[in-house]
Amino acid sequence: MTKDQLIANIRRKQSFLCVGLDTDLRKIPQHLLEEDDPIFAFNRAIIDATAPFCIAYKPNLAFYECYGLKGWQAFEKTVRYIRDHYPDQFIIADAKRGDIGNTSAMYARSFFEELDIDAVTVAPYMGEDSVTPFLQYPGKWVILLALTSNKGSHDFQITADQQGERLFEKVLRKSQQWVSEEQMMYVVGATQGQLFEDIRKIVPHHFLLVPGVGAQGGSLEEVCRYGMTADCGLIVNSSRGIIFADSTEQFAEVAAAKAHELQQQMASLLTLDPRP
Amino acid sequence: MTKDQLIANIRRKQSFLCVGLDTDLRKIPQHLLEEDDPIFAFNRAIIDATAPFCIAYKPNLAFYECYGLKGWQAFEKTVRYIRDHYPDQFIIADAKRGDIGNTSAMYARSFFEELDIDAVTVAPYMGEDSVTPFLQYPGKWVILLALTSNKGSHDFQITADQQGERLFEKVLRKSQQWVSEEQMMYVVGATQGQLFEDIRKIVPHHFLLVPGVGAQGGSLEEVCRYGMTADCGLIVNSSRGIIFADSTEQFAEVAAAKAHELQQQMASLLTLDPRP
Repeated sequence: MTKDQLIANIRRKQSFLCVGLDTDLRKIPQHLLEEDDPIFAFNRAIIDATAPFCIAYKPNLAFYECYGLKGWQAFEKTVRYIRDHYPDQFIIADAKRGDIGNTSAMYARSFFEELDIDAVTVAPYMGEDSVTPFLQYPGKWVILLALTSNKGSHDFQITADQQGERLFEKVLRKSQQWVSEEQMMYVVGATQGQLFEDIRKIVPHHFLLVPGVGAQGGSLEEVCRYGMTADCGLIVNSSRGIIFADSTEQFAEVAAAKAHELQQQMASLLTLDPRP
Repeated sequence: MTKDQLIANIRRKQSFLCVGLDTDLRKIPQHLLEEDDPIFAFNRAIIDATAPFCIAYKPNLAFYECYGLKGWQAFEKTVRYIRDHYPDQFIIADAKRGDIGNTSAMYARSFFEELDIDAVTVAPYMGEDSVTPFLQYPGKWVILLALTSNKGSHDFQITADQQGERLFEKVLRKSQQWVSEEQMMYVVGATQGQLFEDIRKIVPHHFLLVPGVGAQGGSLEEVCRYGMTADCGLIVNSSRGIIFADSTEQFAEVAAAKAHELQQQMASLLTLDPRP
């Protein structure tokens, strides 16, 4: 998906919501456990219920891999279901990969050729040649970890070098030399507040993928105040706050209501006119 | 596996060789493509041929995930085959994972509960709470990326902070506070030469997992000169130089010869007496 298509979807739906499919078998409604593929059954219901209110889905690979073969099958079915039924949705494989060149190339092939995924999250620690193999596919995106939402983000990411440049700033600055803003986004946690201002000084036009609204305590208003651009420039993810809001047979309706609520907040904060 | 058991294996076999199972369907002998599961057929032959000469196997997840379900199945079968037939081998899932706490916990469950793997490689960028979930399993190890073997390792890993401490040094120093050397190793690329000396100043006793000997150009002698401890303290990985040394029907014999050759070099460099 191109940046223009993504912006058009945000404008039309008045939403920059990404629904995180962190599907944990221990948290899904009991009655689904009788299904052949409970993970996929849950995801399908969540997707059908929330699709009108979001522009992206982000399955987190960990939640699939931990069930081995069956988990991987559920992941593939989920991706194909979104692609077949909701072709406008931007699909993010939250995988946080990053390895030496030939290995990253294998991961890229897995996500972009075998499955028609739009974007993969990548960790920057190993540097340029661990990231660039993902950039060989036009219209496919790398979403690079910059400043994450967790407590441990402060262990290494905000360390300043001898010129005063912090590690996340160095990641933003250097990685811009590898590819244009048409194929690169950055992960910035909603919990990082005013650091969004510092980030926008370095990447004024890039899209940011923002986890951490909801269960992790980040504020949507604050993220928009400091991070929004003229083209929106934000994809805000919510996982647990939507998909596990209810654990009865009404879970999908409740998830839809939660997603709708967030979409309405987003519409009120969004400066992109729905009728351009 | 405990550190003592690992050292005992190294002593007994006079080897600190890890065989990297980076099994690429495009590189394996043609005749194996007729098998039901060519990846597993290749791995089994390589394992049976090389097991006398190595103390560890390291399947790189990327090479399995890129084949989706079938790849994942081959990975699981490979791990179970090693566990059943060569219980003394140390199994490393080269996954380079690292995510927020609840997600890392899912990965840990996948590798240490569902599969009886000994160690997982983890990326440090997200800090303490992305690593500690892997440390909840006694006898199981985290192998944290410190200074990798690739060119891009110099993009961020060697940046010094305002006290002159480089990022890889900060990773080594901070992570020692999270757990003892009984559950933590570090990835240090064989291509890093004399930087091993700086690393041993911070982690004098930890085991290091050293990729980059062979295809990537690192020198075994140099690694041992600067990195070896009284307990060896090294697991040196070779992948392509062993497993793809030959692509005919004799591939397993040639792999065995390459592994044997490396084992003999290792025996001559090792200071652990085989008869303690």
